[in-house]
Amino acid sequence: MERTVPLLPGERVDDLMAGGLAIIQHPGVFCFSLDAVLLARFVTLPPRGRVVDLCTGNGIIPLLLSTRTAAEIVGVEIQERLCDMARRSVTLNGLDDRVSILCRDLRMCTEVLPVGTFDVVTANPPYLPRDGADVSPNPYLAAARHELFCTLEDVVRVASRLVKSGGRVALVHRPARLVELFSLMRQYRVEPKRVRLVHPYADRPANLVLVEGIRDGGVELRVMPPLVVYRAPGVYTDEVLRIYGGGTA
Amino acid sequence: MERTVPLLPGERVDDLMAGGLAIIQHPGVFCFSLDAVLLARFVTLPPRGRVVDLCTGNGIIPLLLSTRTAAEIVGVEIQERLCDMARRSVTLNGLDDRVSILCRDLRMCTEVLPVGTFDVVTANPPYLPRDGADVSPNPYLAAARHELFCTLEDVVRVASRLVKSGGRVALVHRPARLVELFSLMRQYRVEPKRVRLVHPYADRPANLVLVEGIRDGGVELRVMPPLVVYRAPGVYTDEVLRIYGGGTA
Repeated sequence: MERTVPLLPGERVDDLMAGGLAIIQHPGVFCFSLDAVLLARFVTLPPRGRVVDLCTGNGIIPLLLSTRTAAEIVGVEIQERLCDMARRSVTLNGLDDRVSILCRDLRMCTEVLPVGTFDVVTANPPYLPRDGADVSPNPYLAAARHELFCTLEDVVRVASRLVKSGGRVALVHRPARLVELFSLMRQYRVEPKRVRLVHPYADRPANLVLVEGIRDGGVELRVMPPLVVYRAPGVYTDEVLRIYGGGTA
Repeated sequence: MERTVPLLPGERVDDLMAGGLAIIQHPGVFCFSLDAVLLARFVTLPPRGRVVDLCTGNGIIPLLLSTRTAAEIVGVEIQERLCDMARRSVTLNGLDDRVSILCRDLRMCTEVLPVGTFDVVTANPPYLPRDGADVSPNPYLAAARHELFCTLEDVVRVASRLVKSGGRVALVHRPARLVELFSLMRQYRVEPKRVRLVHPYADRPANLVLVEGIRDGGVELRVMPPLVVYRAPGVYTDEVLRIYGGGTA
């Protein structure tokens, strides 16, 4: 299944340890993190249909989702350099027939994507406010961490417009902003239905949260069992190993 | 320290396993549950000052708080029968000098309690909506579980009025209503700051949530490590045993 695609200087091809997938990465441009893997394994997916991933970066989430559903998947990314990486990864994995990358400001993607038609919207947006401290001088890394191109409200608003009534919107974010996230989801009629807190160790505060909402859904939140990442320094728990291997979160 | 107080038919005195405290209970009127103990051990308390507990029932939370702070504590309860039990438990423990029970509809308690003066407000309100299924024919048990005398919004609104700016409001509730709880807290200017999910077992969904907010606080939520209740059927985890023994959650 694997094709040959050209690599740019500094790029490498990483094995995704799931479904025979590989992905193009570059430490100075974009490398995915555990967050994206957890979201791709957490979200509820239909066997087929239409899925859109906002802030798709190098396409990690569309690639991983492709092993769990036969749906058509669109990744939306504003940075041309990342779109180019993502598209070559799609080709590398022979997925051009059902995964596509739209290079566009997500705030304008409803001009070309049909609103109210997607079964699922996913997003692993930047976690930190635009004006926060420690903005990287590297523009790619800065955009991945800070809200330079979009705010959390932009992401939720656009997700709410794209998804169909009864469809799902799933995000990964920092627990510090969970109240804001719930508030925005409600404001844009995506009722939070399922949450999973991710803790580095069982006795430490959560450092990530996975949230799934349903467009026009009824009120009832389910808080899943905690997801613990490490059982000892540098040693993943069995559950995280299973997730990396393709299991659901 | 323990005094003798009269007991009514069916009442018993239970040892609270903490600070030498005892409490009057009645299976057909009111018995406290783990929820109240967890809340009393979770909330951040000043060494002294003023604390009010809404929906106080038989006074379990004021009694437990009295072992952690020298503050004056008021418990507010609408049902005369429960106020009477709570007052006798206060006397039984020799706490009349700093724990008092106000028998009043909490929606009207701001007429007699000074607003904006309390350092801490706690509440273990009924979890289920007024019109839910399975309302007990026993009026005491019905009021403890269903919102017959007050809604969650009443509790948050009154807590927000009683607490001083910078003071804390802590509640225990069902995770199913966490989105609503966050939303109400924000609406009444009590920013959620600290959350702890309680899971019956480590691999099961949460069935309780402890939330602490700060009146006029800044936005930043901390999700504490999960609190797991049982390590095997009927066998508490070490942490829950420590909490029952007087430790903080």
